[in-house]
Amino acid sequence: MRFFSDNAAPVHAAVMAAMTTANTLDTAYDGDALSKQLDGRFSDLFETDVRALWVPSGTAANCLALAALCPPYGGVVCHRDAHIQNDECGAPEFYTHGAKLMLCDGDGAKLTPATIRTVIDAIANDVHRVQPHSISITNATEYGRVYTPGEVAAIGELARERKLGFHMDGARFANAVAHLGCSPAEVTWKAGVEALSFGFVKNGGMSAEALIFFKPDLADATLMRRKRAGLLLSKGRYLAAQLLAMLDGDLWLETARAANAGASLLANAAGNRLLHPVEANEVFLRVTAAEAASLRAKGFDFYDWADGEARLVTSWDQQAAAIAPLAEAIAAL
Amino acid sequence: MRFFSDNAAPVHAAVMAAMTTANTLDTAYDGDALSKQLDGRFSDLFETDVRALWVPSGTAANCLALAALCPPYGGVVCHRDAHIQNDECGAPEFYTHGAKLMLCDGDGAKLTPATIRTVIDAIANDVHRVQPHSISITNATEYGRVYTPGEVAAIGELARERKLGFHMDGARFANAVAHLGCSPAEVTWKAGVEALSFGFVKNGGMSAEALIFFKPDLADATLMRRKRAGLLLSKGRYLAAQLLAMLDGDLWLETARAANAGASLLANAAGNRLLHPVEANEVFLRVTAAEAASLRAKGFDFYDWADGEARLVTSWDQQAAAIAPLAEAIAAL
Amino acid sequence: MRFFSDNAAPVHAAVMAAMTTANTLDTAYDGDALSKQLDGRFSDLFETDVRALWVPSGTAANCLALAALCPPYGGVVCHRDAHIQNDECGAPEFYTHGAKLMLCDGDGAKLTPATIRTVIDAIANDVHRVQPHSISITNATEYGRVYTPGEVAAIGELARERKLGFHMDGARFANAVAHLGCSPAEVTWKAGVEALSFGFVKNGGMSAEALIFFKPDLADATLMRRKRAGLLLSKGRYLAAQLLAMLDGDLWLETARAANAGASLLANAAGNRLLHPVEANEVFLRVTAAEAASLRAKGFDFYDWADGEARLVTSWDQQAAAIAPLAEAIAAL
Amino acid sequence: MRFFSDNAAPVHAAVMAAMTTANTLDTAYDGDALSKQLDGRFSDLFETDVRALWVPSGTAANCLALAALCPPYGGVVCHRDAHIQNDECGAPEFYTHGAKLMLCDGDGAKLTPATIRTVIDAIANDVHRVQPHSISITNATEYGRVYTPGEVAAIGELARERKLGFHMDGARFANAVAHLGCSPAEVTWKAGVEALSFGFVKNGGMSAEALIFFKPDLADATLMRRKRAGLLLSKGRYLAAQLLAMLDGDLWLETARAANAGASLLANAAGNRLLHPVEANEVFLRVTAAEAASLRAKGFDFYDWADGEARLVTSWDQQAAAIAPLAEAIAAL
Repeated sequence: MRFFSDNAAPVHAAVMAAMTTANTLDTAYDGDALSKQLDGRFSDLFETDVRALWVPSGTAANCLALAALCPPYGGVVCHRDAHIQNDECGAPEFYTHGAKLMLCDGDGAKLTPATIRTVIDAIANDVHRVQPHSISITNATEYGRVYTPGEVAAIGELARERKLGFHMDGARFANAVAHLGCSPAEVTWKAGVEALSFGFVKNGGMSAEALIFFKPDLADATLMRRKRAGLLLSKGRYLAAQLLAMLDGDLWLETARAANAGASLLANAAGNRLLHPVEANEVFLRVTAAEAASLRAKGFDFYDWADGEARLVTSWDQQAAAIAPLAEAIAAL
Repeated sequence: MRFFSDNAAPVHAAVMAAMTTANTLDTAYDGDALSKQLDGRFSDLFETDVRALWVPSGTAANCLALAALCPPYGGVVCHRDAHIQNDECGAPEFYTHGAKLMLCDGDGAKLTPATIRTVIDAIANDVHRVQPHSISITNATEYGRVYTPGEVAAIGELARERKLGFHMDGARFANAVAHLGCSPAEVTWKAGVEALSFGFVKNGGMSAEALIFFKPDLADATLMRRKRAGLLLSKGRYLAAQLLAMLDGDLWLETARAANAGASLLANAAGNRLLHPVEANEVFLRVTAAEAASLRAKGFDFYDWADGEARLVTSWDQQAAAIAPLAEAIAAL
Repeated sequence: MRFFSDNAAPVHAAVMAAMTTANTLDTAYDGDALSKQLDGRFSDLFETDVRALWVPSGTAANCLALAALCPPYGGVVCHRDAHIQNDECGAPEFYTHGAKLMLCDGDGAKLTPATIRTVIDAIANDVHRVQPHSISITNATEYGRVYTPGEVAAIGELARERKLGFHMDGARFANAVAHLGCSPAEVTWKAGVEALSFGFVKNGGMSAEALIFFKPDLADATLMRRKRAGLLLSKGRYLAAQLLAMLDGDLWLETARAANAGASLLANAAGNRLLHPVEANEVFLRVTAAEAASLRAKGFDFYDWADGEARLVTSWDQQAAAIAPLAEAIAAL
Repeated sequence: MRFFSDNAAPVHAAVMAAMTTANTLDTAYDGDALSKQLDGRFSDLFETDVRALWVPSGTAANCLALAALCPPYGGVVCHRDAHIQNDECGAPEFYTHGAKLMLCDGDGAKLTPATIRTVIDAIANDVHRVQPHSISITNATEYGRVYTPGEVAAIGELARERKLGFHMDGARFANAVAHLGCSPAEVTWKAGVEALSFGFVKNGGMSAEALIFFKPDLADATLMRRKRAGLLLSKGRYLAAQLLAMLDGDLWLETARAANAGASLLANAAGNRLLHPVEANEVFLRVTAAEAASLRAKGFDFYDWADGEARLVTSWDQQAAAIAPLAEAIAAL
């Protein structure tokens, strides 16, 4: 049974159906009727005017956002364990033309104004040091922790004071919102976020993420960068179709809630084995190698994270009944 | 009726079906069983050991290939009307980190050893001038012309002599092979081509092109560059599925033949209005503005190419019966 | 005798002396008393507030300017024979992170609003094409032609209309001003120029050019880029000393006049062999291979430019008496 | 009195004289007789065939070397306090087109095989993580510590095993060699170093550093990159002259010994205030703010390094008599 990544989850039937329906459209790139709905639909969702671009991967969304917020000679403050630092093969450096990631510490891969200040206040303000130009946080984080609107707003306030851009990597934004129960607006632009990578692929989509600009004028140059990076798919209508299908009836929230619920079941079973509070759809466990092996022997597939640690990720398609055997196996360790 | 671009054609039913079937797989990135078949399946097709990578766009395929064949301080010789020069928003410069395109003239957007020599022999061999490192040709060309194996081999021989890399942009490679009736091998590696962007999206696919390396050792760095560019989709299995479906039973050749056949019908109707011989699925016509307007008034949609010129592109899904009205309208002009 | 390049001329004694004097200063980078005078001294010269940065080469000056005026996804309109296109090994692409040079035709390597419009009006305004962001002209040009203030202003007006940046490569700016007899202001910012590479090395300096920003806010990011490119020499005071020595008593104008005078003598001797009007310190001659060989046999060193063409460059240190033998030899051909 | 940086030291009289002598040469770029001597002269010094390029700054030397040793998608292992990480405004990222610096801990800014392994062994060997391609150490280090030949060789052995490039930032290489008393060969290529930034500017030069390739084939592409970066000064003969003057009679070693001797005097005076053993020409002291102020009140100029820490740098021109007052003042604190 698959618990190693929500990237491995299937595509939701509604998304597949929407792509089939899109097969009757005949306009290229993003000139089609579906792509043209994105700004409006996401503006409705976020209760403000946004620009929304489809992109085929989360890495692309993140790095186009960073390129919009940070010049080649600037720095992006992020957590030491951030996806942009560890899991994108230097894509931020590629897209920004060589900006530097400035690494913060912090529990659960979360930044705070204090940890950010520790990093940026140590940087002399001269031409010898790369200067910080932007902050990037991940919500939910790489450890499945969720920033509250207040926590985001505190960082947003610091960003405003220091004239730093503010990006949110929301590969699991849906899981964060599902956990918080707040509006998408509250935890983004109302808290100072300027650009959001809004993930759909892990949450029922196939190959479309949304890059949302709350400062609409950031989008124009990004349209050029998207094309220039080979990301403007000629049949973009199938990507737009995926996003719209996920927005319809708040499907994105429904699927995220399902994934979160699965993780909650595991968390309850795990008790004090938990390395981090479980707030989204990731569960980090303290397990011995023998325990990990015994779980695998029962058919559960997951990642070793570090010595004595395992990561389990639940997905939108895993119902309680599907989760139960793993929960039981964990409880029985 | 759509004749403005084969990018606007629908996705073939077999491709849609394959994606649905892939929905039962559960491995991320390119670790899945379908992605792992690509090297073998394309090696069979090309009758030699190749490395085959899926990528989500033709621009991405082209520019990853160029980055593999040309350093940042080098130049890529291509036609003045090449897609990489005019239609990719500087993607070659982005992916190669600033290599320079060196523009050749030539009928029908075709290069010859002579036109290439004219450009590169004028470049003093010193550090002040960007030095040529690679050649890129498009087959079928941007004007729907097809290089024969002999023509490609002549360029390949020059590339070998001058130690230049050799890339083929095959966004419409299928149409070229369908026209030539040769094996894919004859017009590529047997003629000196080192990397091929093998297009499927215009020819029945949705979002997957194949980047083929005939020099397998070029692929390793490209795997890093693909990830770094945000092109390694987390659910890559759906891209592999598309390619495999197009290879099954030589569907790619069947669809290309259909598109070419449509163009032939138009060519026959066009007579001496033709600006270029019609060899693939593009037809360039000499038309007055009034004639173009009259065609549009009848519901035919196409691009104005230049003053007094129109481009019409036929697609894999357009049967003879669907083409006939336009052929008649052209003949009646 | 040296006529192949003013790069080979010696350093003026006043410049050498100033460097020796600077040897008593002891501050690093550009924090020294001499470097701090540059903004003021060049503001005086240009009769407006400018920011003036020393850089160690003309290529560096040009490309820092272009990076300030054009984003990575943009284009710079320049002449087909521009130094930035042909003689900098792709430095514009390196510094701008991949911007594209957009090549214009024109006699004497001069651009006009008409030739610029021909190029930029052919570019469809969409994301598939690199869009023009800046214009760069060379004054005096690569063929020793000089733009008048009126000619520059006409281009400046076009730049303003189309919201394009405007850079002047002034590797031989001094020669141009010496020819025009106008103020430096008239042919630069009063005519719309935003950034000027003001050359001193060919004109008596050793290793310092001035990069002048007439839009002062362009300088801040450039300070970062200068450091980032390894161009912020730790002992910058010796570069500032060179520039200040050249400004003192308008030495730069005196040396340029001397070089121009030498070229005039050659031009008079050359008669209808001249390929271009001689306005600065370069002379392009129509000569047969035998004639060129005969001149070389007499000890005159110069470049072959193209078949049947020779380039001769006079330098600031060559007095009339030194020029006379070559003038006579040319007249005697 | 200047103790804040050896960058602020004057230029040695022999160097000034050599530049004056070079004023009679008349060839451009690096085609002159002096530049052509560099390969031979440095090969003699290093007792092996090397390629030696002048460059105008240490940052340029470092980053050209890194670009030769690490692809854009790779990583360079260096110390957390390395100059390339903290003091070059992202120049490594600019020159390498976005490679990532991989930061090691270690006393005195020194790396060891163990600290390097800690960093690189933690990097999963897949396309999601930037992979290490090179190691860069600084000798003498940013804290004035010196790697012995044995220490360098241990790192060189690791580099060889892991197929990593190996660069030495030798901004103060002369001070290191002066301290070690070994041959330049022993602590470089005999210990596995492939490229060396050999600093002269801090040690009596004006604007010329030497970039030494012990793997000569690395130099060819670097010649292109040097030009492309605007670093190929048109009057390069004045840079070559500086280097040759410093090599003559081992002047570089004499000046470095003088600077080191000054630091020794300070070290003796400092006793247990020393934060690091003094091996080159830098002295790091534990001082209170009041103590630092008292030293400054006496006219001694230096940098605060961190809270309660001061950095004092001695220079080649400071004789024992000039150092004595500071030594006394420190002893008297």
